[in-house]
Parts: sequence; C-alpha cells; structure tokens
Amino acid sequence: MASVENILAIEAALAELREFLGERVSAAEAVREHHSHGESTHAPGMPDLVCFPRSTEEVSRIVKVSARYSLPVVPFGAGTSLEGHVHALRGGISIDMREMNRIVRVSVDDMDATVEAGVTRKQLQKALENTGLTFFIDPGADATLGGMTATRASGTTAVRYGTMRENVLGLTAVLADGRIVPTGTRARKSSAGYDLTRLFVGSEGTLGVITEVTLRLHAQPEAVTAAICAFETIEGAVKTVIEAIQLGVGVARIEFMDEHQVDAVNRYSHLDLLVKPTLLFEFHGVSEASVEEAARMAESLSNEHGGLGFQWQTTLAERERLWKARHDVYYATRALRPGSNVLTTDVCVPISRLAECIVATRADLDELSFPAVMVGHVGDGNFHVQCLLEPDQMTEADAFAERLVERAQAMGGTCSGEHGVGSGKKKYLKAEHGEGLEVMRMLKRSLDPENRMNPGKILDLD
Amino acid sequence: MASVENILAIEAALAELREFLGERVSAAEAVREHHSHGESTHAPGMPDLVCFPRSTEEVSRIVKVSARYSLPVVPFGAGTSLEGHVHALRGGISIDMREMNRIVRVSVDDMDATVEAGVTRKQLQKALENTGLTFFIDPGADATLGGMTATRASGTTAVRYGTMRENVLGLTAVLADGRIVPTGTRARKSSAGYDLTRLFVGSEGTLGVITEVTLRLHAQPEAVTAAICAFETIEGAVKTVIEAIQLGVGVARIEFMDEHQVDAVNRYSHLDLLVKPTLLFEFHGVSEASVEEAARMAESLSNEHGGLGFQWQTTLAERERLWKARHDVYYATRALRPGSNVLTTDVCVPISRLAECIVATRADLDELSFPAVMVGHVGDGNFHVQCLLEPDQMTEADAFAERLVERAQAMGGTCSGEHGVGSGKKKYLKAEHGEGLEVMRMLKRSLDPENRMNPGKILDLD
Repeated sequence: MASVENILAIEAALAELREFLGERVSAAEAVREHHSHGESTHAPGMPDLVCFPRSTEEVSRIVKVSARYSLPVVPFGAGTSLEGHVHALRGGISIDMREMNRIVRVSVDDMDATVEAGVTRKQLQKALENTGLTFFIDPGADATLGGMTATRASGTTAVRYGTMRENVLGLTAVLADGRIVPTGTRARKSSAGYDLTRLFVGSEGTLGVITEVTLRLHAQPEAVTAAICAFETIEGAVKTVIEAIQLGVGVARIEFMDEHQVDAVNRYSHLDLLVKPTLLFEFHGVSEASVEEAARMAESLSNEHGGLGFQWQTTLAERERLWKARHDVYYATRALRPGSNVLTTDVCVPISRLAECIVATRADLDELSFPAVMVGHVGDGNFHVQCLLEPDQMTEADAFAERLVERAQAMGGTCSGEHGVGSGKKKYLKAEHGEGLEVMRMLKRSLDPENRMNPGKILDLD
Repeated sequence: MASVENILAIEAALAELREFLGERVSAAEAVREHHSHGESTHAPGMPDLVCFPRSTEEVSRIVKVSARYSLPVVPFGAGTSLEGHVHALRGGISIDMREMNRIVRVSVDDMDATVEAGVTRKQLQKALENTGLTFFIDPGADATLGGMTATRASGTTAVRYGTMRENVLGLTAVLADGRIVPTGTRARKSSAGYDLTRLFVGSEGTLGVITEVTLRLHAQPEAVTAAICAFETIEGAVKTVIEAIQLGVGVARIEFMDEHQVDAVNRYSHLDLLVKPTLLFEFHGVSEASVEEAARMAESLSNEHGGLGFQWQTTLAERERLWKARHDVYYATRALRPGSNVLTTDVCVPISRLAECIVATRADLDELSFPAVMVGHVGDGNFHVQCLLEPDQMTEADAFAERLVERAQAMGGTCSGEHGVGSGKKKYLKAEHGEGLEVMRMLKRSLDPENRMNPGKILDLD
C-alpha cells in the first residue's frame, strides 16, 4: 500500500481533513497503532489517518474525502471487537466515534431513545436513570451503541428482550459516496418499503458508517429475582431451559456455565459454587408475586431434570454478587493461566441441538493441550468457548475453532451468534449461506462499488 | 403491451411452461381475471399466464422462463392484499402459491416451523393443535404465510408477539434469474453477515419470489383473560395503553375502536356496547393469578384515565364473542352502507402522538360526505380507517387518505403500519424515506436489473 501515489493521496487527504477537523485528525503513530486492533488475536492493521468527527455531517465530509483519494474507511467504536472488525487491513481512514457521544432524545411515552453512535451502553443506562426505562442489551464490554448495531450484538438478556436486530428502530448511515441516509421512522412498525434498518444492523461498517441509532427501550421491571442451580448433566440443564421457555416462564436471563467455568469463577470471585454444569436465572415481572411464581416454575423444572438444589437469590446484594461473578468470567478465565493468549469464539445452534453440541465440544476440548471453558446464553442456543493459549498452541486452537463452527453449522446453526464476522470468520460464510453469500456481494457492490467501506470484513470481493 | 413480439413471447413461454407444469399453467380469461386483483379498489392488472407450482424448483424454472422472454413475475397468495400487490400491472406471469401448501417441519423444542409459502395462517394454527405452541400473527384475513412475509404483516397481537419482521427466522427466495437463495439458519440469532431474511420480509415480491418460510412459534398461554372498557375520551384510552406498556403489564392485545366503529359492531354483532371510544384487552400469562394481576393493573389504569367501567370477560364464550365482534369489524362496517365501496387504509405513528392523530383524523372525517370508522392496534400506534363510499366519493376519499398519511408522517410515523405499499402507497415513500428511497432503488437494481419482479410495486424505477 505504501506506493508513492498512496503516500501523496494520504497527505492530500490529511490536508483536506485538517481544514474542517483541525486537531481532530491525526497521523501520529501512537494514535494509528491504538486504532489498529480490537480485543482479538487477529492480525492488526494500521490506518493511515484517524479522525474524530462530532456530527453526521462531518462523517459525510470525511467519507467524501476518502472517496476523492480512494482511501478505505474503517469505523471505530470502543475497540472491544472480538473478530477484527476495526482493523484497518488496507490502511485508510479510521473514524473514531468517541466524540459523537450525545444522547439526542429520550421519549418515555414512546419508550425509545436516539443516540449518536459513540454513546456507550453504560452511558445510555445512566442517562435513563429515574425514567423507569432501561436498555437491556449487554454484550459484556461497555461497547458503543454504534458498534453494537454494526455487529448485531446481544448478550445475556436476549432471551427476553431480543438482540440489536429487534431493538434498533432506525439509524443514520453515511454511504461510500458520503450521502447521508436516515432509515426507519419513529413508528414501532412499518410495512413501507425495504427494511434498510435491518440491512445496516450487522453490516459491520461494510455498507456505510452508522452515525446515529434510535433504540427501543424497555420498562425497568417492578420486581426481579434470581437463582442458581447446578445440574448432574448438561442435558438436564438444557432440558430445563427448553421447558421453561415453552411454558412461557418470564425468564430475563438464563446463563449456562460448564464445570470448568464454575471452577474458574469460584477461584476468581471467592465463591463456593458446586463444580457442575450450572444455570443462572433472572426473572423480571410486574410484582413480587409474579417473579416468585416464575422462579417456582423454574425450580420445579430444575428438580425434574437433575437439578442439585435451586438456590434463590432474592436480595439485591445476592443478585449482584451472582451476576458480577457471571460478568467477570472473562477475567476469571484469564486468571486460570495468567499471561496467556485468550481465543474467544461463539457459535449458536437450535436449542434442540444445544446439549449435544456442548457435550461434543467438551469432548473435543478434553483431547487438547490447553485449558478452555464454556459459558452460554443458553436460552438462545448461543455459547462461547474461551481457550487459554501459549503462543505455540494457536494453531491447535484455530483448528479446534474450525471444528466448533463446522459442528454448529452441521446442526443448523451459525458460525457467530453475536460476535460477528469481521476478518476472523469470513471463511465460514460460504458453508453457512451458500447462494446467499453471492447475494450479499451483489448488495455490497451496489452500495460500495469501489469496496472502500471496511474492506476485508464479512466479504471477500473478487 | 400487446405488441406482436409480446404475444409471441407469451405463447413461447406458455409452451415451455406447459412442458413441466402440464395443466398447472393457464392462459384462460377467467383464471387471469381472478389473478388481476386483491381486495382493494386499486386498478387491477391482468397477468398473461397463471402458474401453480408445487416446489421451489418449479418456481425457479418458471422464473427462468420469464427471464428468457422478459416477462414480469407477480407472486399471488390468498389474494387478500389491500394495496394492489398482486395486480399484474404490466402483465406477465402470476405465480399462484396455493399448491405449495405443505408444512415442512415443526420443532416443538425449538419452537419453530418451516412452511411452504402457500400455507395459510389458519392452516398452520390447525397443524399446531396439541403441540402447546401456536402462531399468533393475525392480519384478519386468512392470508398465506408467504404473502404475510412479503408484506411484513402483523395484526392484533403485535404488541406482545411482534410482526413478521420479528417472527420470520429464515426463508427461501427465488431471484429474478431463477437462482434459489435460502436465508438465515435455524439458530435463534446470528451475527454472520447481512440480514437477507429481513431484506426479503416486506419486499412484496419485488426482489424475488418467497417460496418457503421458517417461523418462530410461541407457547400457547396457560391462562387468558380479556376485558372491554369504554372511555370518555380518546386521550384517556391512549394514556391507559401507554402506561400499561410502560409498567410491563402482560397485554397480548390492546385494540381501539372509535365510537362510530362501536356503533357498527353493536348493530352487526347484536351487542350493546357503550357508544364511546373503547379498548379491548387480552392478557396472556402462565397462570390464572398472573393474568388476573395484569388485568387488575389495566383496570386500575383505566379508572384513572376516564374509563367508564372495566368489564372482565373471563369465560371462553365471553372472550370469543368479544373477539369475534372485533374480527368482524370489516363486515360490520360494510353493513352500515350495503353495496358501497370500502377504502381501507392504515398508518402508524409514535404512540405519544396517537391520540392527537386519531382526534385530528376524526375531525377531518367529520367534514366529509361519507361515513367512516376507525379501529386500531393501539399498542403499536397503528390504526385503520375504513371509508364507505359511493362511486362519486372516491376522489374525496383519496384526498382524505393523502391528508391522513401526511399527518402521520409529520408526526414521525409511517404511511403503512401493516398493509404495505403495493401500487397504492408508492407516492408517499419519498417523503418518508428521503435518500433511503434511492438506496432501495440501488438494492432493487442490484438483484433485479431488468425490473421484472413485481414491477410497479413499492418503487418506480427511472
């Protein structure tokens, strides 16, 4: 990429960007390095320039400059991506959204909010305090809402409140030619034309830069209770989840930890959980009576399926301790083998195949040379594997990750439930989408004929 | 269209189609006439040929023939469309899906089902009896699930169970060149690439023919109760709905009828409901206690907002009588002025603007020369107006419908909450989508460069 033409193009682009961004465009090595990677082990990629716009109009101007000089554009949120989405694999302009962090409006009656793409989920939650509403989607990291939209993120509450797919009502995107496209209306539903909103949700910056998002909010539940239950077998735990959902029990979260994960959590969070396949439940309802009823139904199902004692966590302190332990699994796992590399991957299968998939994956892991744990949003059929690796175990882990995806796809599942494709999972899309992959290429070419928008992510264009 | 070349093309296409469809392709006048229109008053359009395929492969072969002879393709479901979707405005081949009526699979554990596009919603509901599951989306008519997918349909239960947008997990579409594209996986969620499923949901046959759909199912509620309540004012009714949703009360349906609609229902269904703005409620829950709790909360909110007596309908007979009356509003309205034409239109606004929109619409109607009623899925901000017209009142009604859409759009709403665009609402999309409309054209051109797939619907291509 470092041809003379390219160097001249970057210098000319920098001069143009400087005119309206001033100090908010940088070519400094340290800034570029910071924007060369997310949190994964995928190969980094340095952008040539980094911009910090403050409005959709500025993003549009940046993208127009990129078009004039044929430079790639890579959106950058909180940098918490796990599949290489923000790596500037072909250089170009990284657009860091951190200064687009205004909450544009909140409507309590409509239960929605419009935010700039750089607002993080915790920032939004804080802004919603005392409104009676909240935003539940929680991918773990304090990601930006733009990044969560771009990767179609979800998390522990998806079983009840859905993913970004269901919770983005509309957005604003800047296309490759700089045009500004608002999608959706503020109506809750519409049958008026193609669903452009859903086309951009999960497009990972490859169709345009998302600059603003309108989100569906949910009522803060009047009553909450939680519980934890260890099981003799993985099958018993999964069967409990399936039946709870079939019965319409109001679970807001059902999380699974395998026994290796429980062991790590015990050590890290100083707990003494039974080292067995374990479910964590949270119930939301309109009254104490309704959440108690839901929890009793879950307790009864657990007992039927080999539960080893359903422990209610009714106080806020107990609940917070439990969910803090769940949220800290990433660190708990790392602490099992300090200093090691972590490969984190996720798949999602139909829930009828989930127990089989987890059991087969554990059997596979037991043959390998590195420690690994499993944790999952089991109500959705989604689970994660974290592998703790020495440098010489990366190849072995990559081969495992391939087998995991092939196993999930063979069961009718997907190569990624919530982390996205980025550069890391492109190779799996042909098997998953067949002819659909070529349709994705047709759509990409129609909106970005020069392949400048986050090139090398999701699709390889020939 | 009746050029010599065109006549020869149709004859040649007929001969080719006859080879693999036999008697399942027709050029008979009566068959073509039947496929020239839905249930709206929009101008009909006769197809040149009508095909009755039995498989996705046959649909693919039909579309390949259409491509060879440059003939338009118009999918046809149950013919219940209200915006002219199935009218063959440029002739060509109507593909009637009635013989693609197999339920391919039902998975109780995964709570999903795959059906061919010609399966109707009542047929699916019947097939689900005794599974503990059901499919809730109910647009009134016994539409096909392919047609409901293509128009992004919804209905009375969307407030709780969502629309086709949320309930289609995947589908199979045949593109303009005959290629067969499966979308989605059987996993509940995925972050693996563009959301092709949502692109086809609501595309009204303009991007391809939908031949198979995988649907999310829901648990049959263990307990159901219903209620009806008249209100002094429209504002009071809407305020009750807003607060019920904010509190997370488990309403499965909240329907609004204006006093003219209530009057029509009284006459038609021999009821003696108070002739006032009225809400119909249905509550679903896991137990009698939970639905009773929900209903009590709704009762208390109704009382606060000018409710004139909250009447519980706890027995199945009472509930069925109530919802039958609601479902019969179309016929009840027609009976107000037998033999008249009915213009049925729908808009959807943010719920915070709903009362204002309904009041302004009623004031508008009160100045006009024809009777009209309003009924709505008020939890979504969606309402319908039915106008009963003599032939010489059509122009007046069309002008009213335009004002209605402009009012809804000015409030941040949409020109159609659930009926779709078809040929009837194309003119409103520029105001609603702005630059997004050109993006829709780019997508359409990329998948259907010759504009043969249901031409003249949603988009005009220049």
